[in-house]
Amino acid sequence: MAYSSKLLEQAVEQFNSLPGIGKKSALRMALFMLKQPMENVEKFASSILSLSKNICHCPQCNMIADSPLCPLCSDSRRNHSLICVVESARDVLSIENTGKYNGLYHVLEGIISPMDGVGPSDLPIKELEDRIVQGGVDEVILALSTSMEGETTSLFIYNRIKKYNIQVTTIARGIAFGDDLEYTDELSLAKSIENRQPFKNL
Amino acid sequence: MAYSSKLLEQAVEQFNSLPGIGKKSALRMALFMLKQPMENVEKFASSILSLSKNICHCPQCNMIADSPLCPLCSDSRRNHSLICVVESARDVLSIENTGKYNGLYHVLEGIISPMDGVGPSDLPIKELEDRIVQGGVDEVILALSTSMEGETTSLFIYNRIKKYNIQVTTIARGIAFGDDLEYTDELSLAKSIENRQPFKNL
Repeated sequence: MAYSSKLLEQAVEQFNSLPGIGKKSALRMALFMLKQPMENVEKFASSILSLSKNICHCPQCNMIADSPLCPLCSDSRRNHSLICVVESARDVLSIENTGKYNGLYHVLEGIISPMDGVGPSDLPIKELEDRIVQGGVDEVILALSTSMEGETTSLFIYNRIKKYNIQVTTIARGIAFGDDLEYTDELSLAKSIENRQPFKNL
Repeated sequence: MAYSSKLLEQAVEQFNSLPGIGKKSALRMALFMLKQPMENVEKFASSILSLSKNICHCPQCNMIADSPLCPLCSDSRRNHSLICVVESARDVLSIENTGKYNGLYHVLEGIISPMDGVGPSDLPIKELEDRIVQGGVDEVILALSTSMEGETTSLFIYNRIKKYNIQVTTIARGIAFGDDLEYTDELSLAKSIENRQPFKNL
């Protein structure tokens, strides 16, 4: 597309670089920004800049946070003997959103993936071990994805921490609520039968 | 959703304010930004700021542009006797994208809409009249939408400029390519039969 303005073209390019945003949506966003009062545009820009500049990672669980120790790790009402290992900050927010988990997290911010050049030493697995060695941890839940990389990472972590006297679990795999049996892949279906549970009402 | 970080929450809110972006996409964008090198984030922010700060409107056609006279109006290869009246800069880009129009534009940046408090005096209709009075204009094409507001605006402009010795046309309405007759509304179908054209190959 030919733009009448270089400034517009650059802004469209920048919006276009966001995940899931095509050229047309990017143009819509740029023109939307043009219609906003200057103070709103400045607020938008400064909020994004300040996110990147001022965010820090929790030294304990590696979650993104404003202050050194994240609100999850510093919350004494949470169960500090339970650590859930996840791939990304987004997974933490998803689990938090369920309101059903009361333990702590350990955010890997990545996954073992030789294709992308990510090895075990690039992930904070040593830090997880340190947390266990420090004591007070009863259970580690591995909540990584079921991709080959996820399974590899889970296995690697399991091998590293199984020597400590703690329980290592993974999240349940099965048929998601609302899914039809006939459209479910064989592996999930097989797992869901293998790991069947005593019936109880929701 | 509860965020572990106020900075993240603010950035998500800002992305959420963009048109067509929900909470989940906004979170995805904010976390994407966090993974970018600082220079990319700065480029993103400065490009959006500079768009809003430095853009100007062409004094002739009201199109957004970097320099006072827009590249369309200052292009001597274009047909300066033809003016296409559109609602927004986006419409100009859409028409330019077809590569089939060689005239100039007149961008209203709005439409007569009493409900939104937009009257004829809020739109650059006087400026359109001035262009016609200056001479050299043979035809004005009204390319506004077929909504009630669009039709009202078209009629208003027609009444204002019909006294000058120029042709006033509207873009053709009919069945879009790829549309099925059975799903087309009666008005478009009726118009497309009324305004039937001699058959020729695309």
